[in-house]
Amino acid sequence: MPIIAVLGTLDTKGAEHAFIAEAIRARGHEALLIHVGCLEEPSITPDVPVEEVAAASGEDWKGIFAKKDRGESVALMARASAAYVARLAEQEKIHGIISLGGGGGTAIATAAMRALPVGFPKLMVTTLASGNTAPYVGTKDIVMMPAIVDVSGINRISRTIFENAAGAICGMVEEAAARLARPAEDRPLIVASMFGNTTACVDKAKTLLEQSGYEVLVFHATGTGGRTLESLVESGMVAGVLDITTTEWADELAGGILSAGPTRLEAAGRADVSAVVTPGCLDMVNFGEPHTVPAKYAGRTFYHHNPQVTLMRTNADECAELGRILAEKVNAYTAPVSVLLPKKAISIISAEGKPFYDPAADEALFSSIKKHLRAGIPLMEFELEINDPAFAAACATALLENIAAHHAP
Amino acid sequence: MPIIAVLGTLDTKGAEHAFIAEAIRARGHEALLIHVGCLEEPSITPDVPVEEVAAASGEDWKGIFAKKDRGESVALMARASAAYVARLAEQEKIHGIISLGGGGGTAIATAAMRALPVGFPKLMVTTLASGNTAPYVGTKDIVMMPAIVDVSGINRISRTIFENAAGAICGMVEEAAARLARPAEDRPLIVASMFGNTTACVDKAKTLLEQSGYEVLVFHATGTGGRTLESLVESGMVAGVLDITTTEWADELAGGILSAGPTRLEAAGRADVSAVVTPGCLDMVNFGEPHTVPAKYAGRTFYHHNPQVTLMRTNADECAELGRILAEKVNAYTAPVSVLLPKKAISIISAEGKPFYDPAADEALFSSIKKHLRAGIPLMEFELEINDPAFAAACATALLENIAAHHAP
Repeated sequence: MPIIAVLGTLDTKGAEHAFIAEAIRARGHEALLIHVGCLEEPSITPDVPVEEVAAASGEDWKGIFAKKDRGESVALMARASAAYVARLAEQEKIHGIISLGGGGGTAIATAAMRALPVGFPKLMVTTLASGNTAPYVGTKDIVMMPAIVDVSGINRISRTIFENAAGAICGMVEEAAARLARPAEDRPLIVASMFGNTTACVDKAKTLLEQSGYEVLVFHATGTGGRTLESLVESGMVAGVLDITTTEWADELAGGILSAGPTRLEAAGRADVSAVVTPGCLDMVNFGEPHTVPAKYAGRTFYHHNPQVTLMRTNADECAELGRILAEKVNAYTAPVSVLLPKKAISIISAEGKPFYDPAADEALFSSIKKHLRAGIPLMEFELEINDPAFAAACATALLENIAAHHAP
Repeated sequence: MPIIAVLGTLDTKGAEHAFIAEAIRARGHEALLIHVGCLEEPSITPDVPVEEVAAASGEDWKGIFAKKDRGESVALMARASAAYVARLAEQEKIHGIISLGGGGGTAIATAAMRALPVGFPKLMVTTLASGNTAPYVGTKDIVMMPAIVDVSGINRISRTIFENAAGAICGMVEEAAARLARPAEDRPLIVASMFGNTTACVDKAKTLLEQSGYEVLVFHATGTGGRTLESLVESGMVAGVLDITTTEWADELAGGILSAGPTRLEAAGRADVSAVVTPGCLDMVNFGEPHTVPAKYAGRTFYHHNPQVTLMRTNADECAELGRILAEKVNAYTAPVSVLLPKKAISIISAEGKPFYDPAADEALFSSIKKHLRAGIPLMEFELEINDPAFAAACATALLENIAAHHAP
């Protein structure tokens, strides 16, 4: 029987979560009441007390609670809840999650939900659904239901919302259970990273991979794109990663606007997924209009992609550092992975005669990758530009071989 | 058997909506495929063609389509879809609605959903769920589910999301059907509008109404608060409106930052709900920090509520206009309504000796209300300040009488 986590601040919103739990049980599912509020005693008896959740943080939670600082306590419980429910889900002890909250409750519960894989049913009933949801939803499939009125008591309106919410999470969990009971119906999936400057390469490799029976989903390396790619890799629904465009690390390093954060390139390692990685577009850092470029970069090489997009060429120092980062991230991969270097150009505009042509910077990048990459990871060098069909074909072939090797007995 | 509207741009996203419809039918419900795309022929056969939806706009839809302007066509279909599904829901021909969309599809479908009452199940699977959802969700209970990948084909990830979505809308519709089959379990509901400057009045009236067996939900007159109040009144879940704080009209008229739009004070009329209306806080227009006040208001009377909130006293001309607007809105009410005037002060700070004391402006307001209010609507004048317990009691009593009269045989 599916078990649905009903997680919330049961000190201030106990009756409301109990109502949801009861509605879930009335539909024939089990509810697991998890208390994540740290202000007062819960108003109902939870199945999981706040102390058990807090301990999952691995931090000095008693010391943090003792400070009675609301912001600090909420942040701690967000981290703790994420660790706690991720473990429950991994152990298949929960099959869905629902929460009701205002500001603090939404911060805690959505942090927990963001720690769960895509496809795992997650529903947040919140007063914050109509507004900027990005900090709460992130790149996950967190379903946001507007609470309409404060989560404070059961009345004609909140009852209606809560009943609909219980129906929604139960329906999602029922569909998810049915899906797990069926054999997979779709072609195995490959995710790819792309920029305008690597489109020809990705398009060509995509065609070849599709001809081999794969479905290829392409993500633009805009920060959000890279984060979503990583999030899907972690969900376990992906057979391989065609990471042609790792440029988001240049933005992360130099303060550009399209960073995907410091965990970019980590998901394939954590999820044991086969991959191909290239230093595509590590020649460029993205800024907005020219006046938005930090003053410290005066004198650097820029390319005005359009009035709203100003690209800065990474220099040799940055390239050496980017090479080290890329290699060290890839060193943590557990499934077969290959690193392919297109030595004639890592983007359209870094080719000879183009505005970002800088052989010294490229050499710093390539030699740093070589220096830091651990033994056992194939490093393949090509005297080609990244968008050369032969390079694209090499990437596709390497990925197919890595996927095959990973599943070989 | 419940019928779920599956509404979308079936020219570009036909297969995806057909997938949802099939999943709904597999759960034993009916699906009604509504085509709202106007670019090309639908890729599947809809139950409702785009022409039938477009005609519901009452506009020259053929002329607008002929211009081939995407923005104009999307805006037209948003208006048309709203009119079309509102009628279907009113006729009880649909019991839930779901849609999948990117930018255009989300704009059209959520416009349709915003035209449906709170409690009516509505689910939007969209690429825009993680970001500013306010333009799409508004004050309604539109459930937003992140699409994670583009709504473009059925693959391992989109299938997972779509299956969860079908489960969610079916579960919501099942709960809603069960609710309609049960007798109402809650105390009848009154919604009230409040500002800091009318808190004592609303609190006192709330207590009295609760003692008479009602539940009172209070909304702060912040624009969003007034819109939500109106939205709930329209949903048919409300027995009475205690509109003590109509101040949002001052912001609408003078360009303040807390306007609830030009339809504030219309819902009670449209939904035939009993009400009490007072000109509470029509002495004040809300601006942000002092430098944000428009230059044209130099020389007016201001009150610095706090560093972020600057209040401007409405003058006699504005008050006369506000009186006319209030009266004309109330003239359209169909259920019993009373207008109560607290002649000594319409806020804390407009009382004698306080910064917004201005008897001439108050008199312009009161006499304009008197002049424009239609015969048959009781206008009750009190030589009291708005927060006087006796005025609060008079408001509560009038509302109870109006509710009783409305339901009398």
